[in-house]
Amino acid sequence: MNPWIEQVIELASANVAQNGGPFAALVVRNGKVIATGVNQVARTGDPTAHAEMVAIRAACRELGSFRLSDCELYASCEPCPMCLGAIYWARPARVFYAASAADAGAAGFDDAFIYRQMATPHSERSIPMIQVIHEKAGQPFESWIHKPDRTAY
Amino acid sequence: MNPWIEQVIELASANVAQNGGPFAALVVRNGKVIATGVNQVARTGDPTAHAEMVAIRAACRELGSFRLSDCELYASCEPCPMCLGAIYWARPARVFYAASAADAGAAGFDDAFIYRQMATPHSERSIPMIQVIHEKAGQPFESWIHKPDRTAY
Repeated sequence: MNPWIEQVIELASANVAQNGGPFAALVVRNGKVIATGVNQVARTGDPTAHAEMVAIRAACRELGSFRLSDCELYASCEPCPMCLGAIYWARPARVFYAASAADAGAAGFDDAFIYRQMATPHSERSIPMIQVIHEKAGQPFESWIHKPDRTAY
Repeated sequence: MNPWIEQVIELASANVAQNGGPFAALVVRNGKVIATGVNQVARTGDPTAHAEMVAIRAACRELGSFRLSDCELYASCEPCPMCLGAIYWARPARVFYAASAADAGAAGFDDAFIYRQMATPHSERSIPMIQVIHEKAGQPFESWIHKPDRTAY
């Protein structure tokens, strides 16, 4: 048993006393913690300040890269859809987590609801998602594809 | 036809010339743009700096709230799973977008792949997601539930 899971659980518990949500995350590389994150939504008023997001952003600053290829992410709870999306963009090697999304749901967090919404047709979602057809809609991608020195990510 | 969709498409096109990805977003409230965002992943090295995330964070700073209840989000392209998750946490009233996730995929962006991964069992995902059973896993939620002055979000 490596020590990171217990460490991330303790960090999540400690964050509750700081008016944070009950979540924490660590990014580990070559056996060392290179970044930590705790939920800061209520404290900062930033709805994207989930523990995993904070830790991923800090790790990328630390490494000077938008990829976390050789890293492992430890989370006190299974990532919500937003954080799971961020994980796929940052691409750590693997993710370890302690509590499940169902545990988060039992504590009042909407993760499972959001996962279900993603599987729901756009027109039936609780937040309506409306495509507006516009003749210039493809223009940004055209500009991108024809830019020879673009940085793919 | 309101002007925001054309404005957000133009903003996305202009961002390509600034070494940004071909994406932009606006948050509109009471007929006024209160925040804008463009993709800044390559420019800042932050994999979470998608246009919608940047715009949501800026709008929340502007309003001093982690909720965008009376707002509309305009995006040059259908949001990726990370941004869709952020939308559900910020809860704008509705979302309008121009290009589709399939258009993004044709330009080389992995949105559709990530949506498919979310529907794939954890053990079969390209980034392994491993639950580590730990006796203290529920401790952060216990602390949260028993904190009488917690700020729910």
